[in-house]
Amino acid sequence: MAKSSTRSITLPRGFQAAGTTCGIKPSGKPDMALILAEHPCAAAAVFTKNRLPGAPVIAGKRHLRNGRAQAIVINAGIANDATGQEGIDNALTTCKLVTQELAGRGIHIQPRDVVPSSTGVIGPHLPMDKIARGVSQLAKKLARGPKPDDDAARGIMTTDLTPKSANASVKLGSATVRLGGIAKGSGMIAPNMATMLVFITTDAAISPAMLKLALRQATAVSFNRISVDQHTSPSDTVAILASGLAGNRAITRPGNALDIFTEKLTQLCNNLAYQIVKDGEGATRVFHVAVTGARTEREADRVAKAVVDSPLVKTAVHGGDPNWGRIVTAAGYSGAPISPQKLSLTIGRTRPQSVCVFDKGVPRPLTPAQERRLKAAMKQKEVYFNLDLGRGNAAVNWLGCDLSREYIRINADYTT
Amino acid sequence: MAKSSTRSITLPRGFQAAGTTCGIKPSGKPDMALILAEHPCAAAAVFTKNRLPGAPVIAGKRHLRNGRAQAIVINAGIANDATGQEGIDNALTTCKLVTQELAGRGIHIQPRDVVPSSTGVIGPHLPMDKIARGVSQLAKKLARGPKPDDDAARGIMTTDLTPKSANASVKLGSATVRLGGIAKGSGMIAPNMATMLVFITTDAAISPAMLKLALRQATAVSFNRISVDQHTSPSDTVAILASGLAGNRAITRPGNALDIFTEKLTQLCNNLAYQIVKDGEGATRVFHVAVTGARTEREADRVAKAVVDSPLVKTAVHGGDPNWGRIVTAAGYSGAPISPQKLSLTIGRTRPQSVCVFDKGVPRPLTPAQERRLKAAMKQKEVYFNLDLGRGNAAVNWLGCDLSREYIRINADYTT
Repeated sequence: MAKSSTRSITLPRGFQAAGTTCGIKPSGKPDMALILAEHPCAAAAVFTKNRLPGAPVIAGKRHLRNGRAQAIVINAGIANDATGQEGIDNALTTCKLVTQELAGRGIHIQPRDVVPSSTGVIGPHLPMDKIARGVSQLAKKLARGPKPDDDAARGIMTTDLTPKSANASVKLGSATVRLGGIAKGSGMIAPNMATMLVFITTDAAISPAMLKLALRQATAVSFNRISVDQHTSPSDTVAILASGLAGNRAITRPGNALDIFTEKLTQLCNNLAYQIVKDGEGATRVFHVAVTGARTEREADRVAKAVVDSPLVKTAVHGGDPNWGRIVTAAGYSGAPISPQKLSLTIGRTRPQSVCVFDKGVPRPLTPAQERRLKAAMKQKEVYFNLDLGRGNAAVNWLGCDLSREYIRINADYTT
Repeated sequence: MAKSSTRSITLPRGFQAAGTTCGIKPSGKPDMALILAEHPCAAAAVFTKNRLPGAPVIAGKRHLRNGRAQAIVINAGIANDATGQEGIDNALTTCKLVTQELAGRGIHIQPRDVVPSSTGVIGPHLPMDKIARGVSQLAKKLARGPKPDDDAARGIMTTDLTPKSANASVKLGSATVRLGGIAKGSGMIAPNMATMLVFITTDAAISPAMLKLALRQATAVSFNRISVDQHTSPSDTVAILASGLAGNRAITRPGNALDIFTEKLTQLCNNLAYQIVKDGEGATRVFHVAVTGARTEREADRVAKAVVDSPLVKTAVHGGDPNWGRIVTAAGYSGAPISPQKLSLTIGRTRPQSVCVFDKGVPRPLTPAQERRLKAAMKQKEVYFNLDLGRGNAAVNWLGCDLSREYIRINADYTT
């Protein structure tokens, strides 16, 4: 995993970043970030499927309709969600403030090339005086390097304990294409197209349509297959800017180059998705749910999601308790048309450490040695479940985290 | 609510009951119960929709196919679920043991008139020696009155803190029809047709077909509208026996008498459903979610279920925190096609104590007096949310409970 000193969003050519503290958070911690490209970029995003999207999501969708953007401005502490027309006006004003501040520094960009994003408490309006001050500070601090990347990663955190960032690079022909990303969790995490906030930069030359295609594919198998607490946030956004400065032959249609780029983007997204689950509110263990032998990926997804969301599975993982009946019965109520007689469950990463506890509908009698291996597998920081449905060849991998008293503490008194 | 000394399942004419300790539970607490009717009864049940039903559910469905039963035998501690053919054999053997013990006392009933039921840990096989001993003790103890009713209610408990029972009576013509019921919660509670174990007796004269109709209707609006932890148990069963001894004109078709009976049965079910939620694992508060203004009940159910299941809503209720953004956004991800501009949320039971916090998509600025009322409403033992979708006239009421550290404690080390 990337350390906080690793370069992320300014590693690709053509990007600057900054983070600051504008005073929205009562704690006085960093609460704003800005990502700026030198030139207008190909841009794409996937947003929450919550029917009550936040004002920045509504504004951001509008701004990205032309597949182009040059800056992303983010605040933490207040989500600007459930705030009506006034909230949308505030999001648009934030974009204008960015263009005005940059113009004062000789950088001229269009308000509609700014993507706004917010995360935090739902309901209150943004304090626009603080936002204005924050934008001004961000414009002054824009730079490249590990420090501004880390500042930006910290500026978008809410209940996250650690900043989250990653980078990757890949050869396209003779050109090296770089990617960088920052992300924030760590509550209201449930997959529904996009989950939480993730901002990715790349210097790949790629058309907006192909960028969107790559992002959708990468998101579907990474951020959409994690869950901390099944509550799909109204702010969820994964946005990507592509500066085109890498010197690769522009990707304008499906084919080998798009596949390579998508694969690398998927790796980056999986890296960030893992960091989000690992830092899930109150989490002490990550568990990996592999569902195999499904007829379709959709069917496998239903089973994996039911397992990953079950409070009884999550508390068993927390207690390091091999209460496998909770896993198979979560599969049972997932809505997928499984047959008990074909269902098997193996716990543990790989043979010979792993133990099959439920074999085609029948519990396996375990030897004392297997009992010990099973207990050991449940006590790891990373716990592995493999549910085989015995119905077909589709398979998916999901990530979840345990449910602890700390989750209750964090969430029983968040607004007041 | 009924006290533990209240008569329940032996109040209707023609029933006896008993509870005992056969030794399945390591704690040494009561773990078996028997309900016996003097004559074969009209019988009906609704069972779990989990695709991995327990062996007793499979056996019970078979035995109830003819709409007739005379006894229900229940054990707690081991669910006899995910146990394959051996589990089904054990459930059928349990029924036979009941008939043999009763025959020794001059009571002759058929094994297929016995409904088996089990609750507890998933995976292990029933210890049939202990079951045999328990059945023998139960046959000896069969009697009528508050004591056997309470013994039976205690014999089916798992993590329940209190036994759950209720009774009701209603005039049908000149006859008085009585109903009694016992129930157990208190984890793996999520509605899907039937939830948890509930056993109801009545002396109404009613045909099996009409009894089934009444039970389905009553269950749909009571047990199917509660959730403790969204994990639909594989053992869920609501079963009813009708002895026909009340002297009412037999109910054999839809009409006024069936409506009266169904209404009273629904009241009894709502009473027991409330007791289950109130004793939900770790629960300190009950919350009532009324969804109004929906186009259909199905749509209202989706919204209410999302709110009742959201860990973020449950922890906010636990903290007495008026973090209403979590409620409206849970509605937002429920899958129901709601419009933010039509959505309103009121917190508190009734005017003038209740406070509208979100009014057709816009947060309501609150006066200091309203802020105080809102905080007071969230600190009650019973918390009330009313979500109006502004789309139609359908309405539903759901019950949920808060999520506490105690839930984690109970469930992080249950099998070991």
